[in-house]
Amino acid sequence: MSAPVDRDVLAEIAAHVPEQRILRDPDVVSSLSHDEAEWAPVGAALAVVRVTSAEETREVVAACHRHGVPVVARGAGTGLSGGANAVDGGIVLAMDRMSRIVEIDPVERLAVVEPGVVNDDLRAAAAAQGLWYPPDPASSPWSTIGGNVATNAGGLCCVKYGVTRDYVLGLQMATGTGELVRLGRRTAKGVAGYDLAGLVVGSEGTLGVVTEVTVRLRPLPPPAITVVGYFASVIDAGRAVAASAAAGLTPAALELVDRHCLRAVDAWKNMGLSVDADVVLLARLDEPGPAGEQAAERMLACFEGATWAARSTDEAEAEALFAARRLAYPALERLGPVLTEDVCVPTARVPEMLARIEATAERHRTTIANIAHAGDGNLHPLLITEPGDDAARVRAQAAFDDIVADALALDGTVTGEHGIGLLKRGGLVAELEPAVLDLHRAVKRALDPAGILNPGKVIGGAPAAGVPG
Amino acid sequence: MSAPVDRDVLAEIAAHVPEQRILRDPDVVSSLSHDEAEWAPVGAALAVVRVTSAEETREVVAACHRHGVPVVARGAGTGLSGGANAVDGGIVLAMDRMSRIVEIDPVERLAVVEPGVVNDDLRAAAAAQGLWYPPDPASSPWSTIGGNVATNAGGLCCVKYGVTRDYVLGLQMATGTGELVRLGRRTAKGVAGYDLAGLVVGSEGTLGVVTEVTVRLRPLPPPAITVVGYFASVIDAGRAVAASAAAGLTPAALELVDRHCLRAVDAWKNMGLSVDADVVLLARLDEPGPAGEQAAERMLACFEGATWAARSTDEAEAEALFAARRLAYPALERLGPVLTEDVCVPTARVPEMLARIEATAERHRTTIANIAHAGDGNLHPLLITEPGDDAARVRAQAAFDDIVADALALDGTVTGEHGIGLLKRGGLVAELEPAVLDLHRAVKRALDPAGILNPGKVIGGAPAAGVPG
Repeated sequence: MSAPVDRDVLAEIAAHVPEQRILRDPDVVSSLSHDEAEWAPVGAALAVVRVTSAEETREVVAACHRHGVPVVARGAGTGLSGGANAVDGGIVLAMDRMSRIVEIDPVERLAVVEPGVVNDDLRAAAAAQGLWYPPDPASSPWSTIGGNVATNAGGLCCVKYGVTRDYVLGLQMATGTGELVRLGRRTAKGVAGYDLAGLVVGSEGTLGVVTEVTVRLRPLPPPAITVVGYFASVIDAGRAVAASAAAGLTPAALELVDRHCLRAVDAWKNMGLSVDADVVLLARLDEPGPAGEQAAERMLACFEGATWAARSTDEAEAEALFAARRLAYPALERLGPVLTEDVCVPTARVPEMLARIEATAERHRTTIANIAHAGDGNLHPLLITEPGDDAARVRAQAAFDDIVADALALDGTVTGEHGIGLLKRGGLVAELEPAVLDLHRAVKRALDPAGILNPGKVIGGAPAAGVPG
Repeated sequence: MSAPVDRDVLAEIAAHVPEQRILRDPDVVSSLSHDEAEWAPVGAALAVVRVTSAEETREVVAACHRHGVPVVARGAGTGLSGGANAVDGGIVLAMDRMSRIVEIDPVERLAVVEPGVVNDDLRAAAAAQGLWYPPDPASSPWSTIGGNVATNAGGLCCVKYGVTRDYVLGLQMATGTGELVRLGRRTAKGVAGYDLAGLVVGSEGTLGVVTEVTVRLRPLPPPAITVVGYFASVIDAGRAVAASAAAGLTPAALELVDRHCLRAVDAWKNMGLSVDADVVLLARLDEPGPAGEQAAERMLACFEGATWAARSTDEAEAEALFAARRLAYPALERLGPVLTEDVCVPTARVPEMLARIEATAERHRTTIANIAHAGDGNLHPLLITEPGDDAARVRAQAAFDDIVADALALDGTVTGEHGIGLLKRGGLVAELEPAVLDLHRAVKRALDPAGILNPGKVIGGAPAAGVPG
């Protein structure tokens, strides 16, 4: 990208966006140029443009289209795959000021929000009307709906209630050619044309820049019962998970947290959590009334391999354990660079996958902490290294590659909910057939013919150095 | 299409498919060249090819690709939009012999089926393992999973449990260039690449020919309680529907059936259903235990505008009413050509939409029977004409157009679950912005560059004569 072209695109943007929202200070640009994926490459952006409306967004994308300049949209930057990392010579489009909850309709049970609305803020606004937006990534206090849509974010309760895609009814977005379009609908059902709204969910900003989202809401769920189990090994805990699936239980959450994580949270928040176990399983059962009691008893029976298990009699304690689960990632991050895995395997393969992760940790002499949305087979091994220890980093990268390969060997996927971004581009190539990758490229060209939308993410561009193949 | 080319494609197909499964008899071809959409145009196909494997399907599509010959896949032919109607000079690909249930995995709660499996057969096989495949179009005794996937079929229980797309985890299909690809996954979650499997669901055979489907299953639901209400008008019934949505109820079904339908079913099946009301609402509540009892009481309170309403004390009677609902369409079809509408409006607009339909019937002197998945705003006004009465047919077509326009005016969609096919191509153009139609065409080109897959359906090609604009 030559300098005159760069100035041209910024000049055009400045015709539509006030100068104070075009951030050019290198430190500011740098701070807004990456997400939380350790070790993913970060490009040098021309500027960050903080838009406040769909129309401004459209103007910026149209200007970039005219100049062939890449556009990377970002929400809160809590992603874990490098999907929001800046691209050399591109514009970072900061959506955080577009944070208006446009509408909550309690009869149709839907909300219309701008992409910068924080997940927890939407949840709180819905709850004020007796409604619930279920997708609850652990980043929900910070991450935005736009980012959740980009990654098709999951979370704790999606084992029963589904992921972001299951809640997106419609959206407005700027296409790769700088047009504003509305996809999807407001009705409960609808099959008018292709499900392009669904296609955009999870496309990591490579098919459009989302400027508004219409999401389905549910009634608030009944109060849940928590069942807690302490296990001597991740494998024992994995067996309990597989047993609960075989028993036909549908918990509202079934989370695994290991001692590494609980200790890190305790060290940070002094929650007094340290437990006498290697692994804790937390199950939530929210069937109403006696059905919930029965489900809790049946879950407890599935925890027969535990060293200790009980239905929680203290909801504050149960809530503290779930809070610790949510804080595990930032707590570990405080201790040093964390390389986060996100594989997902069939539920019956969870014990075997956890055993392989343990063997991988030993083989590569890498500390691997484990948190997992265990109920849906979505595991988050966290590879921890000391800052500055390059040899450890090389070993951790090798462990990362082996975990991806093991997940595929067990009929799993390389990413359950974090997305491909930059870190899993090699994994995507390993997972999908060449003909399917070709279909991806054809769809990408169809919606972004100039290739300006988050180029190099998901598909397109060679895998970054060191990324598993 | 010149004759020598035609012979060439059939000769190529005959190299891969035994002659007895290449049907050329004009009467046989004609009988397999259309679905149940009255008045949709039907093309003259070269032949029907009855495939028995994915590999045969691939060979047929590849041969058609080489010769530029259209391919229209069909399941049971129960569609209501002309989506499976043959195209001039094309091949009809009959998928009904691919009817194997490949696998039911009770732990992962999924089934793998060939596209010709009948919906009820999958439901029965799942039930034998304590599992449930929820999507239940009224055609479930006949329609196939492949057809359900093509139209993203809904049904009675989708007001609570979702539509076909919510259950499709992955699929195998032949692309427009004759390659077999696997899209989606077997894991509970997964975000590796674009959701191409979801894109194919509801694309009516225009983006690929589905050769295998992996669907999610659920545990069987608890026994349901039925609440029945008799109403003096569709508008009173519509108000009860809107009230139930406003009350935050989530029925497992909320169906509206009017007297025209009940009488037609009675005349056919002698079920002794005739009721002293213009309209019947049938609600099913399936929360477990006391929660279900409470929900039934609350639903009954929403039926306050009924002339008579009660919780059914006779499950056989309740089941008969639901059976009548399912039989309404074929029962009315016995009486003459039925033009089936499929609009979907926000739940709060159901009373107004029903009032507009009533006014439309009067204005165009057309008999309009009503069945509706009322709980999700999906209405099926059925326009009935005497065979051979051309003037009535013209009036019915005008009524059809007005209903489509009214649905759009009330923030609805032109099709809730039947699809665009041929009958709603004008409606699609009315519903979507030109830029969104352009995106559809781009996606179509991406997956079917030669344009051989069910050409002229959904998008592409001018609306057929007499189709509403």
